[in-house]
Amino acid sequence: MSQLQNDLVIKAAKRLPTDRTPIWIMRQAGRYLPEYRAVRAKHDFLTMCKTPELAAEVTIQPVNIIGVDAAIIFSDILVIPEAMGMHLEITEGKGPVFPSPVNSKEEVVKLKNPDPSKDLRYVLDAILLTKKELNGRVPIIGFAGAPWTILTYMVEGHGSKSFSKVKKLIYGNPELAHILLEKITKATAAYLSAQIEAGTSLVQIFDTWAGILSPGDYQMFAMRYVQQLISEIKRKDEPVIYFPKGVHYLMHELKEVGADAISVDWTVELEKARRKMGDKVAIQGNLDPTVLYADTDSIKREARKVLESFGKGHGHIFNLGHGILPDIDPENVKALVSYVKEESKNFH
Amino acid sequence: MSQLQNDLVIKAAKRLPTDRTPIWIMRQAGRYLPEYRAVRAKHDFLTMCKTPELAAEVTIQPVNIIGVDAAIIFSDILVIPEAMGMHLEITEGKGPVFPSPVNSKEEVVKLKNPDPSKDLRYVLDAILLTKKELNGRVPIIGFAGAPWTILTYMVEGHGSKSFSKVKKLIYGNPELAHILLEKITKATAAYLSAQIEAGTSLVQIFDTWAGILSPGDYQMFAMRYVQQLISEIKRKDEPVIYFPKGVHYLMHELKEVGADAISVDWTVELEKARRKMGDKVAIQGNLDPTVLYADTDSIKREARKVLESFGKGHGHIFNLGHGILPDIDPENVKALVSYVKEESKNFH
Repeated sequence: MSQLQNDLVIKAAKRLPTDRTPIWIMRQAGRYLPEYRAVRAKHDFLTMCKTPELAAEVTIQPVNIIGVDAAIIFSDILVIPEAMGMHLEITEGKGPVFPSPVNSKEEVVKLKNPDPSKDLRYVLDAILLTKKELNGRVPIIGFAGAPWTILTYMVEGHGSKSFSKVKKLIYGNPELAHILLEKITKATAAYLSAQIEAGTSLVQIFDTWAGILSPGDYQMFAMRYVQQLISEIKRKDEPVIYFPKGVHYLMHELKEVGADAISVDWTVELEKARRKMGDKVAIQGNLDPTVLYADTDSIKREARKVLESFGKGHGHIFNLGHGILPDIDPENVKALVSYVKEESKNFH
Repeated sequence: MSQLQNDLVIKAAKRLPTDRTPIWIMRQAGRYLPEYRAVRAKHDFLTMCKTPELAAEVTIQPVNIIGVDAAIIFSDILVIPEAMGMHLEITEGKGPVFPSPVNSKEEVVKLKNPDPSKDLRYVLDAILLTKKELNGRVPIIGFAGAPWTILTYMVEGHGSKSFSKVKKLIYGNPELAHILLEKITKATAAYLSAQIEAGTSLVQIFDTWAGILSPGDYQMFAMRYVQQLISEIKRKDEPVIYFPKGVHYLMHELKEVGADAISVDWTVELEKARRKMGDKVAIQGNLDPTVLYADTDSIKREARKVLESFGKGHGHIFNLGHGILPDIDPENVKALVSYVKEESKNFH
């Protein structure tokens, strides 16, 4: 940490004083950047994930182009089920697909416990290379999917509207769901520990499908495994950020999950999130990603609302409420980042 | 109302005493019923909407087969934009599409103010026929989409993941959005008034896309038009139910929107909804629709949790937290309805 020239995100995640609010953009490397598309035009998505030079290149792009305060390693949450033995296909535009989703106890038992230093070596190498190339300019954020979200992909095979397969599993065969969640949790804990060892200064856990559950089911099938996962990550003082998309309830329980920061979507008022959780965790978020479609004045106005909603003081990491959309103008993202860097000084 | 043999839903919507909790299922006529599929096999979706005999037949099916306490008229929320002049295509499986979505002031100005007695005559005729055939067994529920949700479809042209077009509109050209919302509100008020005049005992307003907005934008672009809409509906004492899917905030404002009942999704605890709004409105909901994939014991257990979450007393209409899914076994729906009818006696 002492070698970092910019450790604002780390400090904010620990609710330590900073002179402004740090900002990064969820899944900031991606299709909205022409520089990314130029690389992507020559390589498919998985090849980019698995080639450290390419992954490092697109990881660093937003630091240079957009001026964000952290670099999130370019990868995908589905490398974990792939390392567990599932065949993964990623077609841009169509999204990731497991042609043979898990649907029996035999298949669950057959899944292997990956060794990150071998099976996910390419991610660790990408982190090592990124760290070398960044040379301490900003910290690197590692990441993984939360067990519930990974289970959902493994069982559905792809994104879904009704999530019928995974719901059939948890209502019809909850024991099998728990066995699978346990396996995913173990694999993910080892994976995130390895990322930290390779050089990430923070890790974020994405629970994209948390919001499809009722509050009771969320506690039973999602939150408890996140708690277990965080407790099993080997780390010194690297903060953990947890993003339970769509979860607007159970905040008193959520702040005890073990994360240093909780990321909230744009339907949760930051003032409320801070009031309910701010004594225990930092808050990340939460500009509606579609605000970036607007003109610069509107973007600044909406970004200021986010700063005001959190209010004065420390412990806020500015971010979007969900991932950036592919047809956003990079100039708008730059305008947002510059504005937040400058304007947030008034809140510290 | 005096001619109805079962007016439980009406009474519950008015928070009047009943000896059990009434139940109906959102969009209960549909693909999960073989009897519906038999009709659908011979006619396309829009033909069914526009042929009163067919609409009445499938409207009544769930009353006979499932034993629900109300019949919701078979139709679609998109008949309003169609009546305003947009060309609508509905392909089952693919969902409804407007091949030429609205995207300019000229197109907004060109939209006509429909005369329900002519342009939506087929819906009114379906209500008249259904009423005759039901002969007072249960009340008929009319419905429409909320202005924000209708605007979203008109601008996007179809369902969306990012809702980029409608968000570009509200951030980039809010004035045009307000002109269009005003037009939709007027048309919908006349339409719901005509449904009530034709014989519906209640009406429900579906705000399916309410949850894609931030709390501030929801107030500005959605809630205020629902308030205006409800105030403009011509009715004697027919209750209005409002379903703002995904809205878990602003409950103190929401209870003042003018609706007699607010329908909540399964991520909102009924206990909380009742505590925050129950002094002003009845609460409808909110079993997770995917619970119907489970075995009968699990369905009963989860249904009981819903009854317990609302607690003892009046003013609860049992329903799902969102629409029923097409691959649900009708036997499970029957089991749910029987259970709620019987078990809920203990809560009154």
